[in-house]
Amino acid sequence: VTASVPLHCLEDLRAAAAAALPQDVWDFLSGGSGDELTLDANREALRSRFVVPRVLRDVSACTTNASLLGRPVSMPVGIAPLAFHRLFHEQGEIATARAAKMAGVPFVVSTMSSTAIEDVAATGASVWLQSYWLRDAQRSFDLIARAEAAGCEAIVLTVDMPWMGRRLRDIRNRFALPDTIEAVNLGLGPGSVAHRSHEGSSALAAHTSLAFSAALTWSQVDAIRERTRLPLVLKGILSPDDAAEAAEHGVAAVIVSNHGGRQLDGTVATIDVLAEISQAVAGRCEVLVDGGFRTGTDILKALALGADGVLVGRPAMWGLAVGGTDGVRQMLDLLGTELRDALGLAGCESVRAARALRTFTSRSGADRNPYQNEGSRT
Amino acid sequence: VTASVPLHCLEDLRAAAAAALPQDVWDFLSGGSGDELTLDANREALRSRFVVPRVLRDVSACTTNASLLGRPVSMPVGIAPLAFHRLFHEQGEIATARAAKMAGVPFVVSTMSSTAIEDVAATGASVWLQSYWLRDAQRSFDLIARAEAAGCEAIVLTVDMPWMGRRLRDIRNRFALPDTIEAVNLGLGPGSVAHRSHEGSSALAAHTSLAFSAALTWSQVDAIRERTRLPLVLKGILSPDDAAEAAEHGVAAVIVSNHGGRQLDGTVATIDVLAEISQAVAGRCEVLVDGGFRTGTDILKALALGADGVLVGRPAMWGLAVGGTDGVRQMLDLLGTELRDALGLAGCESVRAARALRTFTSRSGADRNPYQNEGSRT
Amino acid sequence: VTASVPLHCLEDLRAAAAAALPQDVWDFLSGGSGDELTLDANREALRSRFVVPRVLRDVSACTTNASLLGRPVSMPVGIAPLAFHRLFHEQGEIATARAAKMAGVPFVVSTMSSTAIEDVAATGASVWLQSYWLRDAQRSFDLIARAEAAGCEAIVLTVDMPWMGRRLRDIRNRFALPDTIEAVNLGLGPGSVAHRSHEGSSALAAHTSLAFSAALTWSQVDAIRERTRLPLVLKGILSPDDAAEAAEHGVAAVIVSNHGGRQLDGTVATIDVLAEISQAVAGRCEVLVDGGFRTGTDILKALALGADGVLVGRPAMWGLAVGGTDGVRQMLDLLGTELRDALGLAGCESVRAARALRTFTSRSGADRNPYQNEGSRT
Amino acid sequence: VTASVPLHCLEDLRAAAAAALPQDVWDFLSGGSGDELTLDANREALRSRFVVPRVLRDVSACTTNASLLGRPVSMPVGIAPLAFHRLFHEQGEIATARAAKMAGVPFVVSTMSSTAIEDVAATGASVWLQSYWLRDAQRSFDLIARAEAAGCEAIVLTVDMPWMGRRLRDIRNRFALPDTIEAVNLGLGPGSVAHRSHEGSSALAAHTSLAFSAALTWSQVDAIRERTRLPLVLKGILSPDDAAEAAEHGVAAVIVSNHGGRQLDGTVATIDVLAEISQAVAGRCEVLVDGGFRTGTDILKALALGADGVLVGRPAMWGLAVGGTDGVRQMLDLLGTELRDALGLAGCESVRAARALRTFTSRSGADRNPYQNEGSRT
Repeated sequence: VTASVPLHCLEDLRAAAAAALPQDVWDFLSGGSGDELTLDANREALRSRFVVPRVLRDVSACTTNASLLGRPVSMPVGIAPLAFHRLFHEQGEIATARAAKMAGVPFVVSTMSSTAIEDVAATGASVWLQSYWLRDAQRSFDLIARAEAAGCEAIVLTVDMPWMGRRLRDIRNRFALPDTIEAVNLGLGPGSVAHRSHEGSSALAAHTSLAFSAALTWSQVDAIRERTRLPLVLKGILSPDDAAEAAEHGVAAVIVSNHGGRQLDGTVATIDVLAEISQAVAGRCEVLVDGGFRTGTDILKALALGADGVLVGRPAMWGLAVGGTDGVRQMLDLLGTELRDALGLAGCESVRAARALRTFTSRSGADRNPYQNEGSRT
Repeated sequence: VTASVPLHCLEDLRAAAAAALPQDVWDFLSGGSGDELTLDANREALRSRFVVPRVLRDVSACTTNASLLGRPVSMPVGIAPLAFHRLFHEQGEIATARAAKMAGVPFVVSTMSSTAIEDVAATGASVWLQSYWLRDAQRSFDLIARAEAAGCEAIVLTVDMPWMGRRLRDIRNRFALPDTIEAVNLGLGPGSVAHRSHEGSSALAAHTSLAFSAALTWSQVDAIRERTRLPLVLKGILSPDDAAEAAEHGVAAVIVSNHGGRQLDGTVATIDVLAEISQAVAGRCEVLVDGGFRTGTDILKALALGADGVLVGRPAMWGLAVGGTDGVRQMLDLLGTELRDALGLAGCESVRAARALRTFTSRSGADRNPYQNEGSRT
Repeated sequence: VTASVPLHCLEDLRAAAAAALPQDVWDFLSGGSGDELTLDANREALRSRFVVPRVLRDVSACTTNASLLGRPVSMPVGIAPLAFHRLFHEQGEIATARAAKMAGVPFVVSTMSSTAIEDVAATGASVWLQSYWLRDAQRSFDLIARAEAAGCEAIVLTVDMPWMGRRLRDIRNRFALPDTIEAVNLGLGPGSVAHRSHEGSSALAAHTSLAFSAALTWSQVDAIRERTRLPLVLKGILSPDDAAEAAEHGVAAVIVSNHGGRQLDGTVATIDVLAEISQAVAGRCEVLVDGGFRTGTDILKALALGADGVLVGRPAMWGLAVGGTDGVRQMLDLLGTELRDALGLAGCESVRAARALRTFTSRSGADRNPYQNEGSRT
Repeated sequence: VTASVPLHCLEDLRAAAAAALPQDVWDFLSGGSGDELTLDANREALRSRFVVPRVLRDVSACTTNASLLGRPVSMPVGIAPLAFHRLFHEQGEIATARAAKMAGVPFVVSTMSSTAIEDVAATGASVWLQSYWLRDAQRSFDLIARAEAAGCEAIVLTVDMPWMGRRLRDIRNRFALPDTIEAVNLGLGPGSVAHRSHEGSSALAAHTSLAFSAALTWSQVDAIRERTRLPLVLKGILSPDDAAEAAEHGVAAVIVSNHGGRQLDGTVATIDVLAEISQAVAGRCEVLVDGGFRTGTDILKALALGADGVLVGRPAMWGLAVGGTDGVRQMLDLLGTELRDALGLAGCESVRAARALRTFTSRSGADRNPYQNEGSRT
């Protein structure tokens, strides 16, 4: 089912999804942790940063084509990992993967996928497995081995989640998984803690605190690298020092991320540390970024600050909720259209050319913000 | 017909025009691209920049007289190019040109004029032709030749429009030209694509993507200079490097412009790059600027930052919609009155003297903004 | 008549005056020029600047006593010149002068006083004459001579008013003087232009443009100094260069002022240039400041940035409107109480000690502003 | 009685307390002085400062354990001194002390306690006595001696209160103590000035001006140190120079404080001077801070800027009002939970590790603020 209203920007899709989803699922998707300062800061920092475009360059062959982790992509964009796509559409991660495949971009499937990783990979999409570090290390290694066997193209190790951040919307909603949705990769059936609503925590946070390890260090990074031939990506880097160390440890990429404002509230906006991180890694690995990217211009700003690519999370779920595969693809196509528009209007015939653009941070900021409170329904 | 309400500032004119025009025409005029961040930023950046006036200088002979492109003008202001003036008043560009002539300022007529360039020039106004680079280069050259033959005084080459930016208001409105209004310079009759409403684009954007070239480079700039004796002005420069290169290529002026926030949304506000561009060209060519100038003080700020002149676009259409020639002239007279007021109160007896003023950018900004969302009707 | 509501801060007085005065008189008092950006900026700049207090200093003898122009004052505050006090209370400038005398602070009476300067001086207050430079220079000299003969203690030459700024509230209101109120010092009877309402200007602006000279320069400053033994103060300085030149010309003080946001809109807030001006004059003359000072802490901030004193204008008229002499005195007493409180709590036993305080400008600013739109009635 | 609504952040507790307390008591607790600029600035400055977290560090043993004044605490948090806890709950300071004891943090009891210091100390909590410098110096010394005899662990000398700031809410409310509540440490019975409502002042301010000395200097600091073996803490330091001098005088700690925005309005936010003060004392004494700390992340930011600990005041009274000992403990437990969460998610296994975190101050700030006007009831 495609949306009944015309979609001309991702905000249109957000509004349609907000109208379509149950409140607790919407909150699970939209919310951040704590006071949601970082959730808002991601958007505000993007909005208050401006681009200085170039002119009089031939952009008739302007293309968004790029490569990520050494493989060609239609644009330097990927779908960020989010748990339980079946909360948003009955076809869940399968629908998302198909859209990613059609659009020619990678899909980072979550360990907490509601579809088995093998089934996702079987769509033929470029699938990267997002991996948590579990208390039972062997289960982490096993899942990585399954991913490699299934044809996944990269391992994305989440490094900012020793436990789940305090997502107050979920806590207030006593959010729990419906019985029909399972973390199949972890064998988490309907009787699990993740399905049991209780006071003072979300069921998912309760599960996370049981299953996840808070002892992840660089030695596990090395251990994973030794056990897989897949490129390893670290997701959740914000400190230039950590980024430089990641490069030293031979990772293929870092993802500059504050987990969409869902882990430590008060964490710096990703765009505000991007330039320094790009300088710190100095080309030794790729630099990806996520957190509030909603327009082609947002992506252009990231490229200008040194990113190799951008991941988008919530917008994929907006598309999924509104139209399944079609909805996700519509989102990606719109983003591709906007990015090509932004590149060409900035005088860049390629993604590479965008990295030479200058940016300017407004002191006065803007006063209107359509994404101001992205989780609101109005 | 003159406005029935007294007009004491351009905002009064805006309000009157907003009440008088059909919604889709109002949106076509008022809107920017994307999230309209740049549309707002132009105004905010002007509002948050303050002037340090001088005192105890004889300003009894204070005058706004200046020169633009070597010709005397009553004030360092011109009318920026905007398409299809007949959308706003039945006499269209003729009415605008007459007002410009009376006021003693140049009028930059658009290639997309709804009146033939020869008829506009025949008013005796100081007319500059705004030129796009068309896929059919010969048509561009022919139009320039026609302009020169008709007595136009300058060619203004738009360099920031390989295609049209994503102006969502027009897309949502499926904006198309009424049959009675034609791009006569391009022979674009009522059956053209610019007149056919369709989903997902404005008709004008559709036409632009067919007719305009995205391959404009410095070699075409040189080619135009070789084919005309008229001074050549490049409109749409924001990078100091591009401005310096323009000076190297012998242009008469650059116009620092982000196309009124209608091309790439997220582009820097013009006033924020003006000083650096003035320094980059170092007097080798004139520096004009547009984007949100609404008061005499706004113009004074531009002069203080090194501009030789300012173009105003939307306000001319407000005047045109409200009162035809009289309305445009009223707008220009008001701006002239305000500029003389601003010069004198800043201790400047001339436009030249204003260039020595210092400015100060507020960190805290202002909280009220009558032009906050210029496109709104309330 | 004293106010029927308790007054605990000047804002209380503002609200009472707003309720008591006719709308056009309120607008005449409250309004600024143009978009009132500078009117607001004066307040915002004060609000976003913070003080770093000192502790563990004996402030049991804390006093606001100071000197202005070499004479002792109860606090470093004076009443700024404002025209036609009889618009606010039937006893007009006499009432104001009496309050100033009781409070032990100087009163700067306007040339446009609605009471003869001799009558004002006869109250025994410390009266300074504010002087405009008139087209008829001899009238300016005569008025200064009258002031000196009447016992005025200083001449305050307004240097930022070659003509009146565009105060749109007055223009919209077609504001004119009632017949009962005259500019008696100038012999401006009820038949004068200042009393005739007409479209497109305030009557006062019309009079100003006829009577005031726009040719005031440093040579007239020297001429005035030669003709009077009274200390000469220049009001309306914002540029450090002008301040330094004033010191060279032997003035007793400069008043850092943007005319309360009533002359050139877009002019820098006074507090934002104060420190640089203090440095520029380097003690060669006193530095006073006005523009939005409403609390003892505001005054403390000015002292910390190098001011010798602060003038308050509109608050005096609030007091006058609400309670005549008692109202003005209540305002001054409140300000004195607040200033002593601020000095002591900042660890300063004297006005002099406050000059060593550091200030800090917030980047984020504050969001609430009781004086946000001081001219509003709500 | 515990709160009937679930409490997931301190804001929940604030809302419950606002609903439970009489308006004048709420205002007494919530209000600041003057325009409440500093009250708001404390929160805004915290909100606009962001943290750069570290990753890939083993935080499985993450703990908030720390030490304050050389004694172990469960977290680097204490309860700030506030007068008359019995205004909020009939068990008053006894309830607060019990909660502090259970939570393992110190409680700074006010000289203006509504319970005798000996009774508070008898709870077995870690009690620090907050001391004012009274006009009758011997009474100050006697109270300190009583505190030492009763087993208090530190003396906290308030140095920013030569008299009480202008708290307009209390003045407007003519706030006075009910007869049932007495400043028992000072023998202030129901007939005292602190119990008599009158116009133009709060009863407490009236009492303060009679009883407190404005002559406190470093010599009294030395005198106190000579008379007690307890560690001496100075509360109310904002200037790095004063902090350095405090270290020279051998104090155990300084508390960076603007008295919760209740003394001099317009004083700098505490977080904005914290780093410079930490550098100034250079480890010679501990640095504590208070003023608007409401979340674990707020505390983390203080640690990152060099603080050894944070005091919270109003939130303790929220807890007390809502649930007595249980309510205060619930508040402390929540803060402890949040702080451990913040530490771990920032990659810090200890409080000490947090001091190496970098912070980033947003230029654009955030637009939503749940604590915007903390004193409001909506």
